[in-house]
Amino acid sequence: MGTVVHKYGGTSVGSTERIKAVADRVVRQCANGDRVAVVVSAMGGETDRLTALGRDVADRSIPREMDVLLASGEQVTIALLSMALIQRGQRARSYLGGQVHIRTNDHHGRARIEEVSTERLHKDLDQGIVPVIAGFQGIDESGNVTTLGRGGSDTTAVAIAAALEADECQICTDVDGVYTADPRVVEDARRLDQVTFEEMLELASLGSKVLASRSVEFAGKYRVPLRVLSTFEDGPGTLITVETNMEQPVVSGIAHTPDEAKITMAGVPDVPGVASRILGPIGRAPIEVDMIVQNTGGDGLTDFTFTVKRDDYERALEILEPVRLDLGARELSGDNKIAKVSVVGVGMRSHAGVATRLFDALAAENINIQMISTSEIKISVVVAERYMELALRCAHTEFGLGEGAGEGRT
Amino acid sequence: MGTVVHKYGGTSVGSTERIKAVADRVVRQCANGDRVAVVVSAMGGETDRLTALGRDVADRSIPREMDVLLASGEQVTIALLSMALIQRGQRARSYLGGQVHIRTNDHHGRARIEEVSTERLHKDLDQGIVPVIAGFQGIDESGNVTTLGRGGSDTTAVAIAAALEADECQICTDVDGVYTADPRVVEDARRLDQVTFEEMLELASLGSKVLASRSVEFAGKYRVPLRVLSTFEDGPGTLITVETNMEQPVVSGIAHTPDEAKITMAGVPDVPGVASRILGPIGRAPIEVDMIVQNTGGDGLTDFTFTVKRDDYERALEILEPVRLDLGARELSGDNKIAKVSVVGVGMRSHAGVATRLFDALAAENINIQMISTSEIKISVVVAERYMELALRCAHTEFGLGEGAGEGRT
Repeated sequence: MGTVVHKYGGTSVGSTERIKAVADRVVRQCANGDRVAVVVSAMGGETDRLTALGRDVADRSIPREMDVLLASGEQVTIALLSMALIQRGQRARSYLGGQVHIRTNDHHGRARIEEVSTERLHKDLDQGIVPVIAGFQGIDESGNVTTLGRGGSDTTAVAIAAALEADECQICTDVDGVYTADPRVVEDARRLDQVTFEEMLELASLGSKVLASRSVEFAGKYRVPLRVLSTFEDGPGTLITVETNMEQPVVSGIAHTPDEAKITMAGVPDVPGVASRILGPIGRAPIEVDMIVQNTGGDGLTDFTFTVKRDDYERALEILEPVRLDLGARELSGDNKIAKVSVVGVGMRSHAGVATRLFDALAAENINIQMISTSEIKISVVVAERYMELALRCAHTEFGLGEGAGEGRT
Repeated sequence: MGTVVHKYGGTSVGSTERIKAVADRVVRQCANGDRVAVVVSAMGGETDRLTALGRDVADRSIPREMDVLLASGEQVTIALLSMALIQRGQRARSYLGGQVHIRTNDHHGRARIEEVSTERLHKDLDQGIVPVIAGFQGIDESGNVTTLGRGGSDTTAVAIAAALEADECQICTDVDGVYTADPRVVEDARRLDQVTFEEMLELASLGSKVLASRSVEFAGKYRVPLRVLSTFEDGPGTLITVETNMEQPVVSGIAHTPDEAKITMAGVPDVPGVASRILGPIGRAPIEVDMIVQNTGGDGLTDFTFTVKRDDYERALEILEPVRLDLGARELSGDNKIAKVSVVGVGMRSHAGVATRLFDALAAENINIQMISTSEIKISVVVAERYMELALRCAHTEFGLGEGAGEGRT
C-alpha cells in the first residue's frame, strides 16, 4: 500500500466518457489499497476555446486576466472527475490550485511553484478520500490566480507528489511509455522499462513530447519516481528514476526534432562580445535558440551558426540583417529545411567512441552532418530534413535499440 | 461623482461582442467620474452547458462539486470583461467570489452571503481600477466554493453595493425597466420610474422576472437603491427605493403568473394538523406551494385548496392520493389550466375598496374568480388560464395604469 499521484492530461479527460473511464481507473487503483491523489488538465480543446475567446475581446496580452480565464478549464475537470468518482461510490473532493495553496511567484502565464500545502491532502488521503487537484494553476502571494505555462499540469503533479512524498507520480497519457525512438518512424522502436531523469530531460527537450522538461527537472530535483503510462491500456509504462541500472546500455533512445532552421552569419570579426551582439536581439524578440556553433578560421574572422524553430526563421533573418551591417560581417544565410537527430544515454558518459559510431553510421548512408553539438549524455547532429528519418533509423540500429536486440534494461 | 455597482446578467454577456458592448458602457460611466464596480453572471447558455456535463458523469446530485463546476462560468466572464476594459484603456481587475471574501454559509447550491470584504475593492476604486467580480459564487468558512442559486448574481451585486455603501446598484438587463404590466400582453403598459422594495418584491415573486426576490429583499434590508435598466439602450430604467412618493397611486402594477395548477382535497375532517399532513409531503418532495385556501363548512369537514407550478401538478396528485385515503377525505381533484393575476401597490394599504374595484371589473367581463389571496400590498386572484390576459388588461385599465393615464409617479 502506497501513496500514488495520477496525472491525466487533456486528451485523457477530453470528454465525459473519458472522464468516466479515468474514474474507473482511479477506483481500481484505490481498490488495491493505494492512497491516490489525482491532478488533471483542462478537457482537450478547452484551453484553445478559452484562448480564442480572450483574443476576441483583446488583441494584446493581459496576463493576469488570461490566467483567470484559462484556470477555469481545469476547474471544470476537477468537478466532473470528482462527481464521476463519487457516483462510483469512491469518496473524492476537488481542489483548485489556491485551495491546496499551490503558491507560485507572480509571473502570470509562466509562474513557478514555490510551495504546496499538504495538510488538507493528507487529511483526505487518511480518510480514504481522493483529492482531485486542478493542474496548471496556483495563486501568488496576493491571492491572484496564476498559471504555470506549457506542461504545467505535469509540474503540478510532480510538486504534489514531492510534497506528499508519494511513492510514485504516474503521468497517464495517450502513449504507453517512453520509446527508444518515435515508433511512427522507427518500426522496431521499443518501449523502455526505465530511463533516468537526465535521459528523460534530454528526450523531453528534444521533442519526445511525452513530458514537459520542467516537470522532469522538478521530479529529478525532488527525487520523485515518475512513471509514464497509458490512461486507457493496462501496462507498466516507463519508470523514470534516479537509479542507474548496472547493465545500463550506452544509448537509451534516439530523439528527433523536425521543423528546425539554421542561420549562419559568416565572416564576422572575431572579437569578444560578438555572440551576444548577434544573439541578444534574437533572445529579446523573443526567439528561442537551440544549438549554437562557432567556427573560427585563422583570418581573424569567424562563422557563427545557430538553430531556431522554423516558424521563427524569417523573423530572425530580418532582425539580423541590420546587425550584420553593424558588425561588418560578410554574409547572412540560412536553411529552413533542416532537422535534428539526437542520441541520448547516460551510458555514453563512460563509453568513448559513441560519437564516432554515430558519425560512421551516418556516413555509411551518405548523410551529410551540418552541425554537431554534444553534452555529457547526448550527441545531436543537424541534417537536411529529408534525411531525418533515415538518420533516425540508422542510429537506432547502430546502437542496437530495436525489438529483439536483447533485453535492454528491465 | 458617486460609487455605482453594475450587474450584467447572462444575456448581457452572452457573447464576446456583447461583452465588448458592456465594456463600452462601463467606460462611459467611468468617464462621468463615477467609481464603478461590476458584477457579472456566466455567459448565457454556459450554466446549462456545464449542468449537462455534470449530469453526464453523475446521475445524482453532488452539490459541492456542482458548485465548483458552475462557478467556472462566471470566472470566464470576469476575465473576458476585464480584458475588454483594459483593451479600452480602462484599468480593471477580475475577482472570484473567494478573492473578495464573499463568505457564505456552506449550503451548496443555495448558499447565503454572510460577509463581504471591501478592502481590496476600495483600494481598486480609489486608484481608478474597475473591479470585475464573479456573481453567484462565494466561499464558505473552510474555503469551499459555494453558489447562491437562482438569481445569485443579483444578490452578489446587492451585497457588494451594500458593503461598499454604493450610491446605486444598477441591474443591467434585457428590459428597460419595470412595467405596470407585461407589455407583450397589455399594449399600453407603462415603464415605472420608481417602485418601492415591497412592491418589487411582490412583483418579482409574482413572475415579473426582472429581479430575483432574494436580491430585492436583501437590497431592501440594507437600503441599497436598486435600478433596473437596459444594458444596450440608454434610459433611466426603474428605481427601486424605500421612499414612498407623496402622490403614490393606489396600484403600481399588475403581475401575472401562467403555468399554474390548483389541487383541491375536499371533504377533509376539520381537525388540527390536517394542513401539515397535506402540505408536509408536498414540501418534502420538494414541490413549491404558492397560494393556500381553506374553506370550512358547518359539517366538520373542510375543503383544502392550494396552487403549484403546472410542471409539479401530476406528481403532487400522486403524492396526495395515499394521503387522501389516510385522512378519509372525500375527493382529490385539480385543474392544471389556471393562472394568477395580482394587483400590487403600497398605496392600497390606505385605500379601502381596491379589492371590490378589482372583483367588480372582473365580473363586468364575466371572469369567474376561483381563488383569492390578499396581502397588505397585493391582491391575487386565480382565474381560468384562458381569461388571464383579459383579466390583466381589465385590471390595468381599472386602476388607470396605461400610457396617458396621468403622470403616475416620477
